[in-house]
Amino acid sequence: MNSGASEPAHEPALIGIDWGTSSLRAYLLGRRGDVLDRIVSSDGILQVGRDGFEAVFDALVRQWPGIAGLPVLASGMITSRSGWVETPYLAAPLGADELARALVAYRTAGGTDLHFVTGMTSEHDVGPDVMRGEETQVIGACAQGASGGVFVLPGTHSKWVRVSGGRILDHATFMTGELFAALRGHTILGALIEPGPFDADGFARGVDAGLAQRSSLLHDLFHVRTLPLLGRLGGTAVADYLSGLLIGTEIAAGAARDPRADDTNGGHPRPVTLVGRSDLADRYEIAFGRAGLPTRRAPEDIVATGHFTIARAAGLVPR
Amino acid sequence: MNSGASEPAHEPALIGIDWGTSSLRAYLLGRRGDVLDRIVSSDGILQVGRDGFEAVFDALVRQWPGIAGLPVLASGMITSRSGWVETPYLAAPLGADELARALVAYRTAGGTDLHFVTGMTSEHDVGPDVMRGEETQVIGACAQGASGGVFVLPGTHSKWVRVSGGRILDHATFMTGELFAALRGHTILGALIEPGPFDADGFARGVDAGLAQRSSLLHDLFHVRTLPLLGRLGGTAVADYLSGLLIGTEIAAGAARDPRADDTNGGHPRPVTLVGRSDLADRYEIAFGRAGLPTRRAPEDIVATGHFTIARAAGLVPR
Repeated sequence: MNSGASEPAHEPALIGIDWGTSSLRAYLLGRRGDVLDRIVSSDGILQVGRDGFEAVFDALVRQWPGIAGLPVLASGMITSRSGWVETPYLAAPLGADELARALVAYRTAGGTDLHFVTGMTSEHDVGPDVMRGEETQVIGACAQGASGGVFVLPGTHSKWVRVSGGRILDHATFMTGELFAALRGHTILGALIEPGPFDADGFARGVDAGLAQRSSLLHDLFHVRTLPLLGRLGGTAVADYLSGLLIGTEIAAGAARDPRADDTNGGHPRPVTLVGRSDLADRYEIAFGRAGLPTRRAPEDIVATGHFTIARAAGLVPR
Repeated sequence: MNSGASEPAHEPALIGIDWGTSSLRAYLLGRRGDVLDRIVSSDGILQVGRDGFEAVFDALVRQWPGIAGLPVLASGMITSRSGWVETPYLAAPLGADELARALVAYRTAGGTDLHFVTGMTSEHDVGPDVMRGEETQVIGACAQGASGGVFVLPGTHSKWVRVSGGRILDHATFMTGELFAALRGHTILGALIEPGPFDADGFARGVDAGLAQRSSLLHDLFHVRTLPLLGRLGGTAVADYLSGLLIGTEIAAGAARDPRADDTNGGHPRPVTLVGRSDLADRYEIAFGRAGLPTRRAPEDIVATGHFTIARAAGLVPR
């Protein structure tokens, strides 16, 4: 922690916290935004609950002695109604500057000043959309060079974010991950699922059915029952067929939102930037490939770069 | 029960049982197919379980003394893998004659001969579909005069059945009811639902969003969260908005399956026949109305007419 004058980049300058529903990621960042240390825990807001946030925060920063006085940015569902401090949504389009101006300051009982990054809304003809936390990830990815195109963040609520010139134009949410869990666990579709390793063929068949958009998902889902019932899909392939059907359906709908994305790379489709290093992101990469859409992976720790970029725009760390 | 020669129509001639997942309806039918008596219970196959069917059946027919020797037809999920006797599926198109030839005979331990009406499959480009029991209802509705058009049977698994000349051309299943229950009970969409009476405006808004088909259901579902979150939908309207969104989505997809239905009634849309007397069927009637599609209601007890029609085609009751 004691950096000499010859190593100013490695001198701690910022703490960034990505505090989500089911996990917490904290970063100690240097004066150029490099990650000096990271702490990952399962202290998501659902686990911690309303009265526990300050204690978790205090225990967290005690692991980094000598950081008193550093600015702290926190993003994610920690600013939701179920979080520590509910903050308003900022309307798209927006970039780091708007997020910096909208930071919500909060002093803990222990006297530490926190700055909450607020969530954002996108207004569409079909209805409003919201997200909290992903905007900081995308701002970070932009600062690392991917300043345009479509970003996809797979998860419980998959987010599609359109970006141009380092600014977020708008976004849309697909309930793919949560719907998969509800269907598998709480409908008749779970009845014919047999456990097994990843079934690439079953997944691919599901993706293709979803991409084809030949009927409504309300109807296509019933094939997750009829195909194994009639002996046309093995029991150990059923869960992956369902997963593929949902992801393929999402990609067909998401790609249809932005046909322009196909015309911005010399006639070739511009790669979709996939955020995340999970098995789920691997599934999306396969599914995008079957859709004929190239992908690239965002670097790790883009959320920390997002915290740093917003903090710098707010004047909380020196330029 | 003792009918004189002057009342042959009221002499018992057939027992028909509609034995589904969650309920059992048994009918005592006269020689012209009129319903002499009915017994309704909650002894669905899920409640009864594999070892209990014969006992439930015996207790049932004991309520009708003097019916020994009458033919018995049973239809519904009782012929599924979770039922009493699993029977094969019959492929569409089909009518009462094919169902009569495919009856599966079964003698109970007590010596009663049962005839199971088997289920049916419809093959579509997008995948196979199945149903058990609804085919008997539709055959019954046809025998009562509605011999063509589209029949919709709302429920856990909503069925759309296309009929011509008293024969079933094909059918498609939509998992609307089961998806509603899973989403309400086991996803974040349930969190903002507040109890209340039927909210007609919330339901209508959901129906219209579903009918518009402006995006994928995977995305539209998220509006069930964002609209109340942003104060644009009251908490007591959320459940009905979700219900409407799903039903509207189903109707848009179902109507798209059969555009020809619009050209068979002198340029006017031919009415869709709604089967069922439930609150759910009332919701479908409202939603079809918002879609500009006229509906009519099938008479009650059409399943008993179906049993009678199939039994007569099989020579089990005199013509």
